[in-house]
Amino acid sequence: MKKKGIYLDYAATTPIDSAVLKLMNDVCLSFYANPTSLHEPGRLAKKRIEEARTLVANILEVKSSEIIFPGSGTEADNLALFGIAHANKHFHFGKHIIISTIEHKAILESAERLKKEGFEISYAPVDKDGILDINKFKKLLREDTILVSIIYANNEIGTIQPMKEIAKIIKNFRSSHSGTNYPLFHTDACQAAGALNISIKELGVDLMTINGSKIYGPKGVGCLFIKKGIKIEPQIVGGGQEWGQRAGTESISLIIGLAEALKIAVGKQEKENVRLLKLRDYLIDKIEKNISYIFLNGHRTKRLPNNINFSFTGIEGEALVLYLDNAKIYCSTGSACSSLDLLPSHVLLSIGLTPELAHGSLRITLGRDTKMSDLDILVNQLVKIISNLRSISAIKINKNERK
Amino acid sequence: MKKKGIYLDYAATTPIDSAVLKLMNDVCLSFYANPTSLHEPGRLAKKRIEEARTLVANILEVKSSEIIFPGSGTEADNLALFGIAHANKHFHFGKHIIISTIEHKAILESAERLKKEGFEISYAPVDKDGILDINKFKKLLREDTILVSIIYANNEIGTIQPMKEIAKIIKNFRSSHSGTNYPLFHTDACQAAGALNISIKELGVDLMTINGSKIYGPKGVGCLFIKKGIKIEPQIVGGGQEWGQRAGTESISLIIGLAEALKIAVGKQEKENVRLLKLRDYLIDKIEKNISYIFLNGHRTKRLPNNINFSFTGIEGEALVLYLDNAKIYCSTGSACSSLDLLPSHVLLSIGLTPELAHGSLRITLGRDTKMSDLDILVNQLVKIISNLRSISAIKINKNERK
Repeated sequence: MKKKGIYLDYAATTPIDSAVLKLMNDVCLSFYANPTSLHEPGRLAKKRIEEARTLVANILEVKSSEIIFPGSGTEADNLALFGIAHANKHFHFGKHIIISTIEHKAILESAERLKKEGFEISYAPVDKDGILDINKFKKLLREDTILVSIIYANNEIGTIQPMKEIAKIIKNFRSSHSGTNYPLFHTDACQAAGALNISIKELGVDLMTINGSKIYGPKGVGCLFIKKGIKIEPQIVGGGQEWGQRAGTESISLIIGLAEALKIAVGKQEKENVRLLKLRDYLIDKIEKNISYIFLNGHRTKRLPNNINFSFTGIEGEALVLYLDNAKIYCSTGSACSSLDLLPSHVLLSIGLTPELAHGSLRITLGRDTKMSDLDILVNQLVKIISNLRSISAIKINKNERK
Repeated sequence: MKKKGIYLDYAATTPIDSAVLKLMNDVCLSFYANPTSLHEPGRLAKKRIEEARTLVANILEVKSSEIIFPGSGTEADNLALFGIAHANKHFHFGKHIIISTIEHKAILESAERLKKEGFEISYAPVDKDGILDINKFKKLLREDTILVSIIYANNEIGTIQPMKEIAKIIKNFRSSHSGTNYPLFHTDACQAAGALNISIKELGVDLMTINGSKIYGPKGVGCLFIKKGIKIEPQIVGGGQEWGQRAGTESISLIIGLAEALKIAVGKQEKENVRLLKLRDYLIDKIEKNISYIFLNGHRTKRLPNNINFSFTGIEGEALVLYLDNAKIYCSTGSACSSLDLLPSHVLLSIGLTPELAHGSLRITLGRDTKMSDLDILVNQLVKIISNLRSISAIKINKNERK
């Protein structure tokens, strides 16, 4: 894989692992039939898909019948919210859903739509570091709450939520209040997979989303864990594939690609995290030492080992990204999925930034190819660009710009 | 591509074109970034996606802004029905939808769900050959009809509908009745693409579904043409990709794969159709000469050049498929997407078959690798298997079993 420049936008998407791509090719050529077909090529394709499903299930420590493969992380998130809401609204459990204020847009937009349908959405706030406010969250739980969805690790500021603690609170609430299995607990683990513990047993969630394109796997495939016994309404209907939970001819190469990518990522995780943590903290330290009037967004330690997010007073994040781009260094202002609108990041506003500071943010996300020397080049460029931009900026620098 | 046996199930899915796979690999390695990212690798990925979109648009003779890429043909069909129904129900146009009785399950199941939501569905019947009954269809059109969805070429019996005629009827109805652009006209062209004329200009449809996995392209990507100005509610929400009509990180390799596959298929179409027609009619003739008490399902000439579908009196289709499978000949009883339930094909029941005869059907679909000698081997085996199965069958053969 020949890449020009320095790619530091691994949270937007990861390049595909070459071993994954090779496997996908082999599979694509050898298992060409429709996995639903009765004949031998169909049955062989089906078998490979089921092996991939088992592989994913084993990694998550769940049953393979609890794993389905939607067409993206977004589709999996949508299915979790719409599927649970629509399948359970008719019961006495109610129409109340809780999500955090720093969810990915796939969750936020699903919640917005459910609101229009008559569901009530509560937004659990986070503190200035982007960690869920546990006390406020507890107070939001109600007997008619059917679902809680909290992002495991945030895609913009990398903040990691105390999943086990949240799961325990929900579990306690269930036994002391509803006496049912509600509220259900979903997490978007798209950024977490490959970096954090994703054992369902340990996390205690009921539904979990993973995305192929964030774990050096293929784009166009996601994974949703749905705990056995949970009623979910499919969002895509037709031929009844994936146990009736997601219709459409299964893409054997995408599914096998996701499973293999997850296996590789989890296998590398421990060693890679040590390496990335060192790089991350080196970069944070170096930026803080070399550039003034900046704020680290997100928690200093409870964050993904590959995530750095700074706000630079008096700077437009978009200008920063484009100047760095010019120097062949590829970063982001925030979420790639949010670059289609010009609104300041809802995540940064949630942790208390002013719209100006939120607009002046830069997200640097590291990955397998990132070297220490890349970060030195980045900081050198950053120092130059920021000095230059600030010299021409009309915005007055205010050291205490946080709300 | 080394394939053992004789694959005659191209309607279930096509193996990927090796040129398409090669292109997808190159693209996957070279354009790894998120197409929504602002930086150069992101912009380059975006550019390639837009080139693919333009390629598809040029083939369909439409604008590239009228093309989006859902995650499958099924998702595209679902989006057409749900998206149009939900976006237009609030207007005065109404809640009435017409589909044919021989739609793919992706349409049938969507319609079933819309029915539960309060939409009224009318089913336009087909004649004994599987051709839409135009007079009955005309009578179903109402002022509150918002959508008509008719499958271009049927996936089980290959019957081709008179699309231009249907489009003209709808157009006349619009000007003489509603005076609006309603009812809209959608067609599922998953089986038609690569075999029939798919120029939107000539067909006169407002929405059209294509599927990568039926045109020697990748599985896991579809294409939906949505005529400019049509209100459609996205079914997957999040980052606002595909002009807000389908959220989720775009898979550059799947999109480029579909576009390239379509280009190749349309390029080969004329020559390949001549070859396939000859093979198809050779096979129909040979089966009819060698096996008695059989019925050709679907129209004898107005059918896809690669489709053969027979009912064999006194035979279970599933047994037939499995005996052929044992001889390494791979066919289908009907739609692969229907093999997950045990109900007789709704398509075969629609053209007047008894449940018994519908259960005794065999679909043989030809493709690029099919040779005359494959068909001779098939007929030899068929003669043997059917004679054997009939000798042990308890079902009495009735030559006039059609209703």
